[in-house]
Amino acid sequence: MSFNQMTADQLSLAEAAALCAEAGIRWFGPWRHKVAEVGAAEARRILDGHGLRVSSLCRGGFFLAADEAEDNRRAVEEAAALGTDVLVLVCGPPEGADVDGARARIEAGIERLLPHAAEHGVRLGIEPLHPMMISERSAIVTLGEALDMAERIGSGDVGVIVDAYHVWWDPRLYDEITRAGRRIFGYHVADWLVPTTDRLQGRGMMGAGAIDLPRIRAAVERAGYDGPIEVEVINREAWARPGDEIVAEACAAFVAAA
Amino acid sequence: MSFNQMTADQLSLAEAAALCAEAGIRWFGPWRHKVAEVGAAEARRILDGHGLRVSSLCRGGFFLAADEAEDNRRAVEEAAALGTDVLVLVCGPPEGADVDGARARIEAGIERLLPHAAEHGVRLGIEPLHPMMISERSAIVTLGEALDMAERIGSGDVGVIVDAYHVWWDPRLYDEITRAGRRIFGYHVADWLVPTTDRLQGRGMMGAGAIDLPRIRAAVERAGYDGPIEVEVINREAWARPGDEIVAEACAAFVAAA
Repeated sequence: MSFNQMTADQLSLAEAAALCAEAGIRWFGPWRHKVAEVGAAEARRILDGHGLRVSSLCRGGFFLAADEAEDNRRAVEEAAALGTDVLVLVCGPPEGADVDGARARIEAGIERLLPHAAEHGVRLGIEPLHPMMISERSAIVTLGEALDMAERIGSGDVGVIVDAYHVWWDPRLYDEITRAGRRIFGYHVADWLVPTTDRLQGRGMMGAGAIDLPRIRAAVERAGYDGPIEVEVINREAWARPGDEIVAEACAAFVAAA
Repeated sequence: MSFNQMTADQLSLAEAAALCAEAGIRWFGPWRHKVAEVGAAEARRILDGHGLRVSSLCRGGFFLAADEAEDNRRAVEEAAALGTDVLVLVCGPPEGADVDGARARIEAGIERLLPHAAEHGVRLGIEPLHPMMISERSAIVTLGEALDMAERIGSGDVGVIVDAYHVWWDPRLYDEITRAGRRIFGYHVADWLVPTTDRLQGRGMMGAGAIDLPRIRAAVERAGYDGPIEVEVINREAWARPGDEIVAEACAAFVAAA
């Protein structure tokens, strides 16, 4: 289990790292806005001090933004500085109604970033996001299209992140996980609450919702993924609560239901 | 253009029909809860009196509900009584985490309903709904799986409803529309608002959002669909406004942006 920082966005990186270490967690998934508060070198020193390894850095991407090229190069460098070989790509929304155009620009952006990533020993994980987030977060909304893109680019350094929350509804899910195989660079878990009252920040702890998490995990592992599993429960209400409670709940839910 | 009743749920069927006729609309898409207020025979008399033909009846489906078989048979009979040959199927959510099981039960339910539908000259249109509605409305969430199901059933009386709001995000959309061909029994329009603040009842008028409606319409027509296009803008805030304004806006938006 890896604890993804956004499960407890109310905590600084140092606070989250301390609570994770106390709970016996060995992996951590930082987000860049928290790393930026202290700098990547200091972030790594903090995490090392708590015996925490970095499972991935969230997030590069947003390939349609004006400053994306420079920002994504920095994200690669931060990932390397943190000692992880995985940069998660949240690819960004379309501008206006041209979704296909956005997808083409995203693919071109990943190709441009790739040499810099390879140079730093960082692999790029395309994360498809739930289609309800298309206009705010990502034009890439299915595991199938993320894989199509990775296959077209054709580098072993470009793969996918499978986040159960984003892909569980997909009738092609298990076929695409099998197809993904070793291109799975990360696996994230959270649950789909019924009802879901917040479209962007309303995820539930594992076991609290409708997703068959054990089945998805088994498929991901059968496909060959044996890395850490990130608990990424983005929930605005949880951010108003004490961080130690959230870390404890994440551990309990991971053991019981993921 | 057909005016779908849920675009103005504040109106009775008779009120909506009168406003549509005044606006020069010739097609209407009733929902069963409004038909039930007067009965199907009286509903048809009202619509006939306003020169309105019925494009489809919304909705049958919910195949995992306890009383579905009897209720869906009645829906078929109501469609026939209203003079339409299309019953829209909103297939219903999974129970718990078994999405594949739900999909199998839905398919079995459609097969059971089919002889009764054929007997009444009613075709069954499977409507895939946006994946964000899976736990409340429909385990069928992509046009591809709706078509797979229709093809497996293998009857000319089972096809699909393409609702732009539900499928616009799909990277496989245009391929699936082409594949659907004459299996398209209806085409619905609304727009995706940015941001979308209501997951179930927050659709926008055509032109107000992010969907490339002209491109989808062109694809649907190229595939062979030449029936009425239903304006189905389910928006809770609009239901608090005067119905004549909503009908006028629907007409203007249809002409300008659909």
